[in-house]
Amino acid sequence: MSSSRVVITAAENFPLIRPGDDLPAIIVSALRKQFGTLQGGDIVSVAQKIVSKAANRYLNLADIEPSATARELADVTGKDPRFVEAVLGESSAVLRAVPGILIVEHRLGLIMANAGIDQSNIEHEPGERVLLLPEDPDAFCDRLKRYLDDEFGIFTGVVMTDSFGRPWRLGTTGVAIGSAGFPPLLSMIGKPDLFGRTLRATEIALADQIAAAAVLVTGEASEGQPVVLISGLDWQPSDAGARALNRPKHQDLFR
Amino acid sequence: MSSSRVVITAAENFPLIRPGDDLPAIIVSALRKQFGTLQGGDIVSVAQKIVSKAANRYLNLADIEPSATARELADVTGKDPRFVEAVLGESSAVLRAVPGILIVEHRLGLIMANAGIDQSNIEHEPGERVLLLPEDPDAFCDRLKRYLDDEFGIFTGVVMTDSFGRPWRLGTTGVAIGSAGFPPLLSMIGKPDLFGRTLRATEIALADQIAAAAVLVTGEASEGQPVVLISGLDWQPSDAGARALNRPKHQDLFR
Repeated sequence: MSSSRVVITAAENFPLIRPGDDLPAIIVSALRKQFGTLQGGDIVSVAQKIVSKAANRYLNLADIEPSATARELADVTGKDPRFVEAVLGESSAVLRAVPGILIVEHRLGLIMANAGIDQSNIEHEPGERVLLLPEDPDAFCDRLKRYLDDEFGIFTGVVMTDSFGRPWRLGTTGVAIGSAGFPPLLSMIGKPDLFGRTLRATEIALADQIAAAAVLVTGEASEGQPVVLISGLDWQPSDAGARALNRPKHQDLFR
Repeated sequence: MSSSRVVITAAENFPLIRPGDDLPAIIVSALRKQFGTLQGGDIVSVAQKIVSKAANRYLNLADIEPSATARELADVTGKDPRFVEAVLGESSAVLRAVPGILIVEHRLGLIMANAGIDQSNIEHEPGERVLLLPEDPDAFCDRLKRYLDDEFGIFTGVVMTDSFGRPWRLGTTGVAIGSAGFPPLLSMIGKPDLFGRTLRATEIALADQIAAAAVLVTGEASEGQPVVLISGLDWQPSDAGARALNRPKHQDLFR
């Protein structure tokens, strides 16, 4: 990778997405209208939330009967027991539960707050809907990448973004919960540095850096500009998805 | 913040930096040569390593006498006891020490591996030099920001980047260890979302996202293109530095 100029552009006036919408077609239409065509190596970033909406990943809290565990964790965290039940339904482990905070291992292997379930930017309804993460973000990215490649006749990358907090730093940053086409992780192991010395083991989380860059323009409410084009990066094709970024449990020093 | 297009450009042919170099003057000269002038709101990103080099933050391992604690941690981690002593000298606490890994709280409040001390991209010498982080990254960024503002007659931001690993995700991402001019942390608390509902407490680590974006073009060896211009972001001036991104210890659930 030796990119010198990267341009990050939001797709303008992207429509609000509703369950059943053909999101890949809407994305292609928006990109075509704004950019005409894409260039080989372009990466399209899509905010998780619109993927979840198109796939109707809503749950109605009124339909949820919280378990005893959910009630217990709701007591500890001060959260709605039905919301906690929804979180547990998406999780394989609870890492921390303290007032205001519930950190879990999502079934996708992501360590995150509330299993990524969001109540913001969801239309007000008596039923108090919440929105789960997509079933399989890497698979969505792969489908979208193939569709983009077909439509534009070039080789693209796709990333699906969410925003995570970090254990030792305040604020959220963009994270790649799905990716396709480009290598999510770049290995520098064994490459010589500027002085011919071999670099110590280093891997770069390319997909997460692209996600952080994309989120710079997605807008505050995270749905204002959910589709972003990243141009100018130089990369080699890869079959790995963002799931490859999950640190294996046996390497986890901080669980 | 409502940016729609952000451009990230590496300063080309940036010279190798040596102790005593006037880094701000070299940066201004490189930016002027390549871009002519800067625009108000432009952010200049500088890789930590060249700041450390200019400030001669080298240590010679041959000069270091490891303490008993350093020898003990060297046994556990398999690292050079003199290197471990250098790490301890920069640290206020050891969080984890296992084979190959030493994670500490740096005196700047950063939770990171090896106190950010690097042996790569340092000229081979019999003395085996290592390079410490700058004394005060926020202060350097503030000095550079004022210098840039004076030179170009506009209002700029500055960020100093390093690359950190993460506890639950593989690979490193760019992190802001210093910043000036722009708000490192954007508070969304109380802002209404798209549907007029108040967003749950959310803060965005703007400085870290900018650092991650900048590192996309700094190059593999992290010193190939150490100075990067980020244009197109919309932000309000702030006096806070990147130190504001350190999570207070009493909020740390994973120490």
